Amino acid sequence: MAARPSTRLGEFELIARMARVLPLRGEGVVLPAGDDAAVVAPPRGEQLCLTVDEVVEDVHFDRRFAPADVGWKALAVNLSDLAAMGARPLWALVALAFPRGEPVARVLGAARGIAACARRYGVAVVGGNVSRAPALSISITAVGSVRPGRFLTRAGARPGDLLVGSGTFGDAALGLEAGAAPALVRRQRRPAPRLELGRGLSGIGTACIDVSDGLAQDLAHVAEASGVAAVLEESRIPTSVPYRRRARALADPGTPALCGGEDYELLVAVPPARLRAALAAARRARTRLSVIGRFERGRGVRVVRADGTERPVPSGHDHLRAPPFDSGPR
Amino acid sequence: MAARPSTRLGEFELIARMARVLPLRGEGVVLPAGDDAAVVAPPRGEQLCLTVDEVVEDVHFDRRFAPADVGWKALAVNLSDLAAMGARPLWALVALAFPRGEPVARVLGAARGIAACARRYGVAVVGGNVSRAPALSISITAVGSVRPGRFLTRAGARPGDLLVGSGTFGDAALGLEAGAAPALVRRQRRPAPRLELGRGLSGIGTACIDVSDGLAQDLAHVAEASGVAAVLEESRIPTSVPYRRRARALADPGTPALCGGEDYELLVAVPPARLRAALAAARRARTRLSVIGRFERGRGVRVVRADGTERPVPSGHDHLRAPPFDSGPR
Repeated sequence: MAARPSTRLGEFELIARMARVLPLRGEGVVLPAGDDAAVVAPPRGEQLCLTVDEVVEDVHFDRRFAPADVGWKALAVNLSDLAAMGARPLWALVALAFPRGEPVARVLGAARGIAACARRYGVAVVGGNVSRAPALSISITAVGSVRPGRFLTRAGARPGDLLVGSGTFGDAALGLEAGAAPALVRRQRRPAPRLELGRGLSGIGTACIDVSDGLAQDLAHVAEASGVAAVLEESRIPTSVPYRRRARALADPGTPALCGGEDYELLVAVPPARLRAALAAARRARTRLSVIGRFERGRGVRVVRADGTERPVPSGHDHLRAPPFDSGPR
Repeated sequence: MAARPSTRLGEFELIARMARVLPLRGEGVVLPAGDDAAVVAPPRGEQLCLTVDEVVEDVHFDRRFAPADVGWKALAVNLSDLAAMGARPLWALVALAFPRGEPVARVLGAARGIAACARRYGVAVVGGNVSRAPALSISITAVGSVRPGRFLTRAGARPGDLLVGSGTFGDAALGLEAGAAPALVRRQRRPAPRLELGRGLSGIGTACIDVSDGLAQDLAHVAEASGVAAVLEESRIPTSVPYRRRARALADPGTPALCGGEDYELLVAVPPARLRAALAAARRARTRLSVIGRFERGRGVRVVRADGTERPVPSGHDHLRAPPFDSGPR
């Protein structure tokens, strides 16, 4: 069917079409979206984690991104926040806004991307809203569950804890560049939240954060919230083969891994006595986990080179001050 | 302090300022916003109602609206959805987006309006996100609790049930007009969700909806979801004194009450044997409740005049097709 302008489709027909695409039912869903509110039954005795994030066209993505990728990522970044808490994802609510004349195919494409990510991670979409706006935007609230008190925060790292990181860093930033390898592009467009790893590290890690703004910057959040200093050993930062191949051409091959955002890997503080348990949890989650530094008394983040000298930390990413996302790796 | 462009303020400072304005703690809040996600403890044994809504500048409001009014209303419309479920509000998550150069005073003004509404109704703001966007927008997810199975849906009205409505209708629509009386303007800008009434009618009403799109249109949703017909007696629709004073000048004085949106009153189906209980619940909630029609076998909505003749129902409001909100009463 040819794409018609969504202005001709009308609110209720569009919502009906989106409802056919999205997984509306799932664990705990008592009354699905479609009434004034959805009704859910929280897992008995558990606590809930709640988080909200928004992506906006020409701020977080542009027309080069397939709508389904935009939708996937809009949900995935929220699930990554749940992963960093050690939570199990359950439900999401989606507020979608778009300009008059936006092709229906694009709006439904975004819904299909949200749906694909929701199905992949077992999330039911229990609320939705569509609205006019000058630019396409997707605001998603995600809800997950944790055993009481077993959530991971940014605030628990202690001097002596090891700093461990999942997967590889810098791929997503390089994935924005023209001619980037497909594996890098995929990391940028279809991030995989480390949900299984996060749950596995609950009760093992003392602090956790997901890397959305860049390794150095998000590590600084952990150090600050925990009231400790973090030492990051640059040579131990894990990178992928496509990253290293691509980064060779850069004046400073380490910058994207250190400062590039949107990797959605986890940074975790682990007491040395629990490192084996953490590595076992990573194996169960089929995720690489690397020791990349340590926490000490003090404040701030120091990045040290293999020769022991200190490397200046480039300034962090600010979502409001930053140039548009597509001005190259950050 | 003079308003500075928010571009100079930066993301983290702005978030810190908003956090000082908003009520971050409240019932069930285990870990407030500020980490990767907030953690809450749902009331033991209860179910949760979840809903999301978004307002966008020049679609749902414009520069004539004070930012604090915009913020109040953005939360109030979500709480109204919880009221229609018979739920008790607990938590909200706020995604705020605004253009580069938006004055900080305006952004914080919106936050203060959200905060005022949240405090008034006992809601803790457990999540937030700020983003750039071409226009100011506020997307809010609200969460409330209900006793298991005791929520009100749109789908339970039965032939023979009475149709009752809270408060008065049409005020909010007239409140958009130039020179409208302060009471009408207030109904438009600071809607009061009927939370206490909704909770009181849980276990009494068989169906419920809040009036956001207009009495006739929202009644049609109840009729359709319930698989019944609704008969609305125009002469029994309650209106306020300022409404009647203003409406005299209109060619059709009844249209705003019948079709004007944003009243955020409740429409409820009540079996005749439970009418006294419903009226008692309304007294406890200090809210007017009027019988304005009935449900019958069949489909659709009929509006009948005092003389028994049928009045054509003007076409409903469509949030995507509609002209901008400020093109006069709908």
